[in-house]
Amino acid sequence: MIDGFVHYLVDNSKIQLTNQTGRLLDTVLRSGTNLPRIADYNQGVVLEAVRVADGISRVEIAQNTGLTAQTISNIVKRLIDRGLVIEANRAVSDGGNRRVRLRANPDSAYAVGVQIDGDETSFVIANLTGQVVARDRHPTFHEQGPLRIIEHVAASIKQIVEKAEIPADKTVGVGVACPGPLDHTRSIVFQPPNLPGWQEVPLQELLERKTGYAVVVDNDATAAAIGERWFGGAKSTSNFAFIYAGVGIGAGLFLKDHVYRGASANAGEFGHMTLNPNGPECFCGNRGCIEVYCSPQGLTQSVKQRLKQGEPSSLRTAFDNVMENVDFQAVEHAVLSGDNIAIEELQKSATLLGYGVVNLVNMLDVELVVLGGKGFRCLGDIYKQEIEHVLQSRLIARQFRKIEVKLSEAGEDVGALGAASLVLHKTYSPHLAALSKV
Amino acid sequence: MIDGFVHYLVDNSKIQLTNQTGRLLDTVLRSGTNLPRIADYNQGVVLEAVRVADGISRVEIAQNTGLTAQTISNIVKRLIDRGLVIEANRAVSDGGNRRVRLRANPDSAYAVGVQIDGDETSFVIANLTGQVVARDRHPTFHEQGPLRIIEHVAASIKQIVEKAEIPADKTVGVGVACPGPLDHTRSIVFQPPNLPGWQEVPLQELLERKTGYAVVVDNDATAAAIGERWFGGAKSTSNFAFIYAGVGIGAGLFLKDHVYRGASANAGEFGHMTLNPNGPECFCGNRGCIEVYCSPQGLTQSVKQRLKQGEPSSLRTAFDNVMENVDFQAVEHAVLSGDNIAIEELQKSATLLGYGVVNLVNMLDVELVVLGGKGFRCLGDIYKQEIEHVLQSRLIARQFRKIEVKLSEAGEDVGALGAASLVLHKTYSPHLAALSKV
Repeated sequence: MIDGFVHYLVDNSKIQLTNQTGRLLDTVLRSGTNLPRIADYNQGVVLEAVRVADGISRVEIAQNTGLTAQTISNIVKRLIDRGLVIEANRAVSDGGNRRVRLRANPDSAYAVGVQIDGDETSFVIANLTGQVVARDRHPTFHEQGPLRIIEHVAASIKQIVEKAEIPADKTVGVGVACPGPLDHTRSIVFQPPNLPGWQEVPLQELLERKTGYAVVVDNDATAAAIGERWFGGAKSTSNFAFIYAGVGIGAGLFLKDHVYRGASANAGEFGHMTLNPNGPECFCGNRGCIEVYCSPQGLTQSVKQRLKQGEPSSLRTAFDNVMENVDFQAVEHAVLSGDNIAIEELQKSATLLGYGVVNLVNMLDVELVVLGGKGFRCLGDIYKQEIEHVLQSRLIARQFRKIEVKLSEAGEDVGALGAASLVLHKTYSPHLAALSKV
Repeated sequence: MIDGFVHYLVDNSKIQLTNQTGRLLDTVLRSGTNLPRIADYNQGVVLEAVRVADGISRVEIAQNTGLTAQTISNIVKRLIDRGLVIEANRAVSDGGNRRVRLRANPDSAYAVGVQIDGDETSFVIANLTGQVVARDRHPTFHEQGPLRIIEHVAASIKQIVEKAEIPADKTVGVGVACPGPLDHTRSIVFQPPNLPGWQEVPLQELLERKTGYAVVVDNDATAAAIGERWFGGAKSTSNFAFIYAGVGIGAGLFLKDHVYRGASANAGEFGHMTLNPNGPECFCGNRGCIEVYCSPQGLTQSVKQRLKQGEPSSLRTAFDNVMENVDFQAVEHAVLSGDNIAIEELQKSATLLGYGVVNLVNMLDVELVVLGGKGFRCLGDIYKQEIEHVLQSRLIARQFRKIEVKLSEAGEDVGALGAASLVLHKTYSPHLAALSKV
């Protein structure tokens, strides 16, 4: 399930980190000195090998990791004692002997993933193998302000854990994905335009106090990229961008197989790329930002604008001429039912998003662009087609580079799932956690 | 001089790469298995320690690298025998004993750096310690096509090496910086818009044949970033972008202390970021690209446009109304002598470049933006001020992030110097070379 497993090929001068298929992830030069001590760290390596595989024997672990049979035998015994690994069915080996296959015990550990957005907050519980065992979703009443929202979130976490009947000692922590900007340490939310009233909110600390769990906070688009990497359609892609359209638009970046968060953990502000320096003002203080044209809110506004000009539309009838009530869901519905105005505005929005993607790919030379979040829930295919078209006609390296554009395969909860996986990796797979560290 | 020296702190579970001041560059998890063999690689570590320091004793090398006194003694002997390291003056140690200080022998190895641009080609010879011992510059007659140009380049390399009286056996290779796009392997130049007629030119292979030297090819802006990192004003910056304005405009990216080249080595196409999707056509096939407005050529065109409309200007008199002859140098001169039209167009160009930089910083969250290349030679301060102004008013994280904007400190030959340093690092400092590998 997780492709990010790495192992190390050591030669005289360097350590090569590769994934299971041998694809080179990174090269690091060896220390010039004293032999490193062999550490309990091996336990993490073995657990990871078991988690990644769909059933694996001790011999195969040895082949994959280079650890000795004796070391593996000892470690596996400890992992079984702790309940993290279980002995599953017996498989026929090439020599005819039967070998015990090991699996990670999915029920041995759980993490809660939360994604806070301006309009709704989603919750998942993921088990050790990344399966979602519970999900929930509540409106975010942002007019109530951060403290009340955090209380609601804490209560909802308590509720979902209880309802799923997860034993307290098996819940290892809470990961929270929320809109940026975040401060340098990523634990304080700094005035995100899509969460009005959140002025330097110490989200991690407050939520730890309210829930009693260890809490990790990350940017929503980054969490979505992590979710897609571990559980979705970007498992074997070294360089990709996840365009996340919730209330706002952001990009989560994987560069050279690592999460890229930037110097202050505020990279990927794709939604605030200027497409027209003299365009309409954006709440970020800039003008003509992608978000103004292409976010669900932006698209809804453009449609309303047209309706206010008196143009005929199925929306006019549906909303009895009270145009203020037209929301994104209505626009989605209008597009799918063939309403001309909605389709035209969507098309404009998709073309503009395409220009933004061209800028992104020109700068970062990624192989894949994934579209996810509610902005692409129903309209994703139309965005995808138009972005592909714009890439083919405007990308500088278009003659020898084909960029793949995909809809997210990790589903609507991709951000919450990514946040949960951050917690699981941090707890059980320090070397995978390091891959996604700043 | 070179700050990029790294050493390794090993604990139970991980290897931390730090620079000399202990700043953490990267964390890599240790292999789960067999102890790695101690290798000749140590020699590279010692040479690097000597190169970085302005005189260093064997004891200090031991402190910096963690190698044993005996190992260092053996390696230093070998390096002295090979002529790469020399014993310099004696320094008073803290104990009162005199210790021999070691220095890299600058004259023990040289690399040629070449930067090919649409209008001129520059050459440097850098020695082992990165000093430029010779420089040269010739016009690029791009109408002669790639083969003739490569012949010229080869002849000029021969000439500069002879003139500088560098022994053939001490010249370790040639690094070439040239405009993109380049193909995946970076040895073939693929139709760069600023080198007309270069259609899939196997530059590395051709130049190796013509010169007999090993040749390394890299993107010009990337080479400039490397030059600035080793020899200029970005020595201790983990995340920065080098905006290189030659005939075109590109960005070289250092992210997390590594050169970032992207999936196909075509990252950093900053000049082809769309600022206005309906703007004037760019030769890349896109519209309203930064290059159209902000490159030396773009700025010159804008000024000419104004002059053609009959507006009064000192350029009109200077060029006797033959506006076709106005070139970038004339525009620079007109700006510095207070010509209104030239100043107005420069101001517009600088503001637009500022919008582009905001987009770049919003996406990549770099700490520093360096401006270099001939576009900023005379007008750099004006661009710098305007970019700072635009960042302060439009960047999304402007309230808690101050982005530094600097003019290149590595000088006009920064691209050629970066290309030369690629060769030196590849030959003598494999672990530094790895830091700048794709």
